[in-house]
Amino acid sequence: MRIRYPNGKPYLTNDDKKKPKNQLTKKKTSYSNRGMTLEEDINKTNDYYLLRKLAVIHKKPIPIQVVNVNYPSRSAAKITEAYYKKASTTDYNGVYNGYYIDFEAKETKNKTSFPLKNFHDHQLSHMEACVDQGGMCFVIIRFTTLNRVFLLDFPVLKKWWRQQKDPDGKKSIPFKAFETDGYELKYSLSPRLPYLDIVDRLIKQKDS
Amino acid sequence: MRIRYPNGKPYLTNDDKKKPKNQLTKKKTSYSNRGMTLEEDINKTNDYYLLRKLAVIHKKPIPIQVVNVNYPSRSAAKITEAYYKKASTTDYNGVYNGYYIDFEAKETKNKTSFPLKNFHDHQLSHMEACVDQGGMCFVIIRFTTLNRVFLLDFPVLKKWWRQQKDPDGKKSIPFKAFETDGYELKYSLSPRLPYLDIVDRLIKQKDS
Repeated sequence: MRIRYPNGKPYLTNDDKKKPKNQLTKKKTSYSNRGMTLEEDINKTNDYYLLRKLAVIHKKPIPIQVVNVNYPSRSAAKITEAYYKKASTTDYNGVYNGYYIDFEAKETKNKTSFPLKNFHDHQLSHMEACVDQGGMCFVIIRFTTLNRVFLLDFPVLKKWWRQQKDPDGKKSIPFKAFETDGYELKYSLSPRLPYLDIVDRLIKQKDS
Repeated sequence: MRIRYPNGKPYLTNDDKKKPKNQLTKKKTSYSNRGMTLEEDINKTNDYYLLRKLAVIHKKPIPIQVVNVNYPSRSAAKITEAYYKKASTTDYNGVYNGYYIDFEAKETKNKTSFPLKNFHDHQLSHMEACVDQGGMCFVIIRFTTLNRVFLLDFPVLKKWWRQQKDPDGKKSIPFKAFETDGYELKYSLSPRLPYLDIVDRLIKQKDS
């Protein structure tokens, strides 16, 4: 039962005061957390960009080492033995408004940091080489438990990658760093994850 | 037996006259025809460009639809059923000197023309979309029997692709068109197929 003042207004504790009273009605429509993986979100976004002729960005196929193939008559070749290979580059690349775009997308269940072991040395080297050629490289990280997605420009990632080897180096990027040095991506209806809005900002910074 | 003039000089027919006499000694060292496929040639060339920090261009993995995977204990996941998927884009892409590079490479045993059925509609659409975004798109075609390799810029390919649907449209690009509207790639020791030299010329044309 709610305790009320004599004038009929409800008595609020400090905890009650912190919460906006009409939180449910005030909350904006959320398009996030609909059970899609980050990869699905990005693929849908890329489909949108392609259809609207805004960019041509695709996920690369997963590298697979084929060992054995059967050729049954009158049907498609059937691969009967194959193994996953370690990716030597990143997941996504393409072209946007004259710029080469190259990025990697990762999810983590961690709430306080993103473990650097999710990347490999050769992926960092690849991104560095692309940046040297004038490409735009970044990573998109989703904190699934917090349901927040950030874009981290390559130079920021590189800084964190390098400090790992320091004697007191951290093995993960603290969540705070995403809030201060990254760009939060907000879900929308379409495109789901409008990351090119951030790329526009990075391009402006680069060209200025 | 060779017929000779009274002064000892050999009698040459018109056919003989056409051939340079000391063809063998004059011929430059040839690095072609060493049993490598066009794909191997291009991969080696891309390795060279990457190592010299001239460009970052990779062959995309072959798209494979994985149906079944076994996870034997203590060893890598083994794919036991999978099928090749049709590529929706091109074989190679990357970044060179600020430009997005995208191309397809094909070999043919034909000597007089290149059959257009080697390409798919969606590959042409892909290249067109990339060009619209400011990318550099082209195809590299090797006539294996003639051992000659040509780079054809996307607009030329598009012209030939479109005329197919004409009532008297050709189903292949005549070899002559490669000689007149394409750029011949000459093999060298390293890089094996210096196609970026031609890309430089295309960039100059584009920017002028």
